[in-house]
Amino acid sequence: MTANLQGSETAKTIDTLVTPTLLVDRGRLERNVQRLAERAKKLGVVLRPHMKTAKSIDVARQVFPREPGPITVSTIAEAEYFASHGFRDITYAVGMSPASAIRAMELCRRTGVDLKLLLDTVEQADALGDVRKATGVTPSIFIELDCDDHRGGVKPDDSRLLEVANRVVAAGANLVGVLAHAGESYSLSTPDALVKAAENERSATVRAAEILRAHGHACPIVSLGSTPTAHFAENLEGVTELRAGVYMFFDLVQHGVGVCDIDDIAISVLATVIGAKPEKGWVLVDAGWMALSRDRGTSNQRVDQGYGVVCDERGRVLKDVVVSQASQEHGILSIRAGSEKTMPALPVGTRIRILPNHACAMAAQHDFYNVINGESPDIEERWQRIRGW
Amino acid sequence: MTANLQGSETAKTIDTLVTPTLLVDRGRLERNVQRLAERAKKLGVVLRPHMKTAKSIDVARQVFPREPGPITVSTIAEAEYFASHGFRDITYAVGMSPASAIRAMELCRRTGVDLKLLLDTVEQADALGDVRKATGVTPSIFIELDCDDHRGGVKPDDSRLLEVANRVVAAGANLVGVLAHAGESYSLSTPDALVKAAENERSATVRAAEILRAHGHACPIVSLGSTPTAHFAENLEGVTELRAGVYMFFDLVQHGVGVCDIDDIAISVLATVIGAKPEKGWVLVDAGWMALSRDRGTSNQRVDQGYGVVCDERGRVLKDVVVSQASQEHGILSIRAGSEKTMPALPVGTRIRILPNHACAMAAQHDFYNVINGESPDIEERWQRIRGW
Repeated sequence: MTANLQGSETAKTIDTLVTPTLLVDRGRLERNVQRLAERAKKLGVVLRPHMKTAKSIDVARQVFPREPGPITVSTIAEAEYFASHGFRDITYAVGMSPASAIRAMELCRRTGVDLKLLLDTVEQADALGDVRKATGVTPSIFIELDCDDHRGGVKPDDSRLLEVANRVVAAGANLVGVLAHAGESYSLSTPDALVKAAENERSATVRAAEILRAHGHACPIVSLGSTPTAHFAENLEGVTELRAGVYMFFDLVQHGVGVCDIDDIAISVLATVIGAKPEKGWVLVDAGWMALSRDRGTSNQRVDQGYGVVCDERGRVLKDVVVSQASQEHGILSIRAGSEKTMPALPVGTRIRILPNHACAMAAQHDFYNVINGESPDIEERWQRIRGW
Repeated sequence: MTANLQGSETAKTIDTLVTPTLLVDRGRLERNVQRLAERAKKLGVVLRPHMKTAKSIDVARQVFPREPGPITVSTIAEAEYFASHGFRDITYAVGMSPASAIRAMELCRRTGVDLKLLLDTVEQADALGDVRKATGVTPSIFIELDCDDHRGGVKPDDSRLLEVANRVVAAGANLVGVLAHAGESYSLSTPDALVKAAENERSATVRAAEILRAHGHACPIVSLGSTPTAHFAENLEGVTELRAGVYMFFDLVQHGVGVCDIDDIAISVLATVIGAKPEKGWVLVDAGWMALSRDRGTSNQRVDQGYGVVCDERGRVLKDVVVSQASQEHGILSIRAGSEKTMPALPVGTRIRILPNHACAMAAQHDFYNVINGESPDIEERWQRIRGW
């Protein structure tokens, strides 16, 4: 007889869970968290994990089992959430607008949290006087650096760096440091290139700090990081802190970059087989892009993993089976192009797990984590996550 | 002085909204809803709108202002939600698993709703006896047809059609009809091809119904639909009902297919400028893939719209400005390749609207709609939406 499905509030094992649903493997999470904590310690820097991937106080407590530490966030809603759970040292690592800066400083005023803001233009710096007047809080400001032409930020040697710094101070705000993110490292795939990208990120960031210091700015914090460069940096001289987020869960993109093994990937979507087209070699499951996200981050890598690598219900990889197509609530499993494998028997009702291209994007499609450990079917806990802005 | 931001529970106008956030234009929604309702009436079929796009009782009330009508859903969570709001005639248009069928029939037992299920294999049909025993409810079953090699379903001339039908009846379930979805129509772009796809969908579906009837199955419902074919069908003889979902909001993919104009698109994401890289022609905004989704549905169309077409705060299209790149909380605006336009002045703090590639995917990234009308900044209402499974 088929088991009655249950929400994860009551389900004791994954075989009775309503699918699709998100799983997190506690053992893998712990191992990933420990690995980067040890690296940061060895490199002599503070680790300021980015909570944009997990968006969960329960995951944050795995990273900081004793007391809340320094964190990075991608939205003010995340800052409000983590502040409400006792976090006091938070960097909002997305460029501020005048209105978002006021919202951020209102949070500081209400809760006493130290929420640091990011900017890279004189227009943003000039707005800080108004922000201070409106809220009565002196903003703590990072200048965003551009170390690899990835997105925003000023180049260390651009005269605007000093101009922006001076305008931050002129507006009565507190210039706390410089911040870089080597986003282009996601497109790399060899250890040599990653080591070089990490050193480029370091030298650009340290150089900017030195320029500012030469002109009278203390610049106490020198912050950098991306999951690939955090794992390949050989030397972080002059750097005070390291940021990374996806390292807690890892994913197929990071595997393609060369930062993790497949069996380091800590999250997956549990799905159920709902049909097949044997003449096409297809198996249909109830996880489409709504559960997996539309992220196709591996499409430009050496190995294209489709919408995800498929494992059996226990998490063992089904060799060369990938989600080759996805519509809203349908995924199509097929054998990877070029493989000589044949599709294993996966009758209707069979459960599988799907590993993410991009952990941030897959997790964002879900409101909670079912906590498991390895091949056991037991659900240990249900962890919350937040969303929105 | 910069206005204090507000959540949409309290904001009266869009210029004080926290960004990024989702807008829906009531006038455009009404026009789109009315257009397809009139077509269905003229074609002599029942319209059974698909709620997977809007996932909102408030939007459903725009479609059914008097009383709840027949609807389609993509998850059992949607069925539960709409049942709790009085909807009684619901089709779950994703293939059932034995476990999901039990959950669905439990909903029928509890609420009296008529929730019809979909299947296309003898394995699923054979499971219905257990479903009936476990729940005490006789399942109403559609057989899923494959009219264009898109996804699941049996071909009308496949001998399995009759086999599945016989097994549904043998399991004691109620065979209510056949159901097709011309998913391949999304890849078309000329009226001729769309008219042909619609006629192909019709003829395949009617043919399957005729085969079943010739073998003693009543097959009262003949259901088909996709937003493109629903708008291009010239004749629906033999068909009893039409399904479509994205037509309520429309999007850039549907515009590329040729189903709607840009100014029919009813949803957008409101975003704020947070920086610029003039040397690259970039403007940075606070809407990345978390707000827009990773959907790049127009990438294979004649005009690639990037991550979305950019409008000013009032919704007027900024000619040739698109979101060319997106990371989690950053969007990069630039001028479309090949255009001779230059980037308009968009200082930090400026607000813009971004039109979706795919309305289902953009809306899924948000928990509510801010209801506006045309170029007015007023927020008329806040509408809820649900997610999860």
